[in-house]
Amino acid sequence: MAEIDFWFDFASPYAWFASSRIDDLAARYGYTTRWRPVLMWVLVRQHGITPPLEIPARRAYFQTDMARSAAFFDMPYNPPPKLGAISTHLAARAFYHLDATDTGRAKTLARRLFHAYLSEGHDISDRATLAAVADLPEGVLAEALDGPTARAALESANAQAIATGVIGSPFFVIDNQGFFGADRLPQLEWHLARR
Amino acid sequence: MAEIDFWFDFASPYAWFASSRIDDLAARYGYTTRWRPVLMWVLVRQHGITPPLEIPARRAYFQTDMARSAAFFDMPYNPPPKLGAISTHLAARAFYHLDATDTGRAKTLARRLFHAYLSEGHDISDRATLAAVADLPEGVLAEALDGPTARAALESANAQAIATGVIGSPFFVIDNQGFFGADRLPQLEWHLARR
Repeated sequence: MAEIDFWFDFASPYAWFASSRIDDLAARYGYTTRWRPVLMWVLVRQHGITPPLEIPARRAYFQTDMARSAAFFDMPYNPPPKLGAISTHLAARAFYHLDATDTGRAKTLARRLFHAYLSEGHDISDRATLAAVADLPEGVLAEALDGPTARAALESANAQAIATGVIGSPFFVIDNQGFFGADRLPQLEWHLARR
Repeated sequence: MAEIDFWFDFASPYAWFASSRIDDLAARYGYTTRWRPVLMWVLVRQHGITPPLEIPARRAYFQTDMARSAAFFDMPYNPPPKLGAISTHLAARAFYHLDATDTGRAKTLARRLFHAYLSEGHDISDRATLAAVADLPEGVLAEALDGPTARAALESANAQAIATGVIGSPFFVIDNQGFFGADRLPQLEWHLARR
């Protein structure tokens, strides 16, 4: 069974919107998905891309578009205080820690992290907040956030995303073709239907 | 009757794809459109935006995406030899010259210019090519390309686009809300349906 790679950063509202659709969309055509959080700041720095929110005219547009897109996707979005300015490396490590043994549990954590940050206004770069959202025993959480395995998994994902040409979040890949943006879901579906 | 502003650059494949849909989409909801060509290089320079095709990783993605999007929109796209690297000021001036007296004729010219550049591989920054595509009497063409009126109309459009926050092509505006990209047509339609 073919798999769709879903690359994203936990700080990306558009990734959250797309995350609410991609598994159902894939399943309708008989595909599975592989969720792969990365750190977009690492990728864009490598590619020489200026993050969209750092340019005033683009920031103004995307802030409006994110709120409107949330309504379009029917998602309970509340702009976080530090939009585009938090590091999601701990969130991504917690994800990969669970993903190594239980993909479903990792996806559940991912949905909770997105919701905590993009709807409830929690700062998921904060360890105490992350601990509360992740709801993992203390020893497991310490291993997830600071152990070498999850750290290596995230570094590997970043490197692979760079090599794959991931230029933003969300970014879907199937058949060596990239689909960038929540707004590419209709085109991704069209591709799956014709495949 | 409310009007949708359609800002675009003649060098933009996504603008061409959207141009094939926007008038019908608007008409279904009782709206008209106002086509407003601009020079994207003037706008992005003003906003401090690096054009997407100038960054290798983004260029690679968008070249693939343009070809796929053409199929998605059912448009006979052939990547032009100088993709993203021609000036469209003469094309835009010819448009505004006709637009001053006959909007329908200006739109017909716009469709021919898009097709000549993005399907037939003609360089529409070249005066002789433009003359052949525009099919205007020589005196009229000279006035269109070099006269003060069309030149002022284009400069005014650029300035107004900058003030409006146009950050790329195509860019639609209605109710003081911007919709950026051919991929925002579904969201624009959703907005019109709820209006």
